[in-house]
Amino acid sequence: VNDLEAQKKQAALKAVEYIQSGMLVGLGTGSTAKYAIIALGERLRGGQLKDIRAVATSRASEVLAREWQIPLFELDGETLDLAIDGMDELDPELNAIKGLGGALTREKIVESCADTFILIGDETKTVIRLGEKAPIPVEVVPFGWKATQKKLEALGLRPELRLVGTEPFITDNHNFILHCHARVAFMPKQMAADLASIPGVVEHGLFLEMASLAYIATQTGVQALQGKEQA
Amino acid sequence: VNDLEAQKKQAALKAVEYIQSGMLVGLGTGSTAKYAIIALGERLRGGQLKDIRAVATSRASEVLAREWQIPLFELDGETLDLAIDGMDELDPELNAIKGLGGALTREKIVESCADTFILIGDETKTVIRLGEKAPIPVEVVPFGWKATQKKLEALGLRPELRLVGTEPFITDNHNFILHCHARVAFMPKQMAADLASIPGVVEHGLFLEMASLAYIATQTGVQALQGKEQA
Repeated sequence: VNDLEAQKKQAALKAVEYIQSGMLVGLGTGSTAKYAIIALGERLRGGQLKDIRAVATSRASEVLAREWQIPLFELDGETLDLAIDGMDELDPELNAIKGLGGALTREKIVESCADTFILIGDETKTVIRLGEKAPIPVEVVPFGWKATQKKLEALGLRPELRLVGTEPFITDNHNFILHCHARVAFMPKQMAADLASIPGVVEHGLFLEMASLAYIATQTGVQALQGKEQA
Repeated sequence: VNDLEAQKKQAALKAVEYIQSGMLVGLGTGSTAKYAIIALGERLRGGQLKDIRAVATSRASEVLAREWQIPLFELDGETLDLAIDGMDELDPELNAIKGLGGALTREKIVESCADTFILIGDETKTVIRLGEKAPIPVEVVPFGWKATQKKLEALGLRPELRLVGTEPFITDNHNFILHCHARVAFMPKQMAADLASIPGVVEHGLFLEMASLAYIATQTGVQALQGKEQA
């Protein structure tokens, strides 16, 4: 498959095969996850699946799910059977950088509640170590964000405020996003702990040890990658 | 001093003695911190201090500072010379639980930027170990807060949603607060790391290794406690 969009869709379809009638499902955000939402909607419309309830990780995904009449519910402490989402970078242990779509906090809240979390994407997203290509998006409280930015710089990162035109991008949670480029290689677990401990950081885009499976679309087909715990 | 309010004021006055003309100062939030704000305002009005610029940790403290015509600025990555704030619990190493006033995230953002951070309070706030009496306030994203609550329970905490009447209390950052009562004794550093790593947690009320000095008012006078690094 040469076309990148067709590749993304193929990976999404592999993940959607895991959805069974009666499941509680987490819906991701972004250009790959949207294919999973549409495929779920088609299966509900066609009657191949029923009694699905889903929780969306962004207002955008919620709107798309409503268009496809996928029944939505509010996350209320339940364990989800399955969550499916795209990623920005994936390492060989299925650790990921996510959230360049701007929805990382809701994504992490939802996907940390899932029994099974499947990442989907195309082969341009795979890396040997996280941070090779993608910045880590970090959601921060607007109050004192420049002080928070300075603390991120002290971790060896180059944080850039995400903008829409000339104004700061505002998340669904009323916060800002700093895209943090790694100036040097980092240890993902240590970086995650350091990021989480900075005052003003709401959430960060390192999704470590969360995914149990990844489907990566290549020009020669979809490749399945198993997480450590499933191996 | 028998009267608790008079005690709080005495502790606040001791801390305000550290403010010198030209300083950038962080203003705390709550019933003890307000005495420091008022004392600073009086010294500016009386001419004993000048060229002070201050940053407030809550809208309430901002309003009070404006009443006293204390020049305010927005935190912009500067190092503050001094921050003064109250606490809910203080252990012998000057680790504190803070934020029962609802402003813990802004307090932590501001006070983590201060060269010198002074805690003030009365002797009812001192404990042998944190969590003896006070719950840890934890600011959480409203989205999926019940899922976040479940993860807090898994840490051995009993999280209660802070309410105003029958509605959730909303922080200055548009979030909820969960008051987390410790069911068993905990190690502050481990608990802080665990809390910070939970998706949906914005900030928590454990202020560890931040204060260099504390003034505790007792019936027989104000006691000064030194932090480890200053000892």
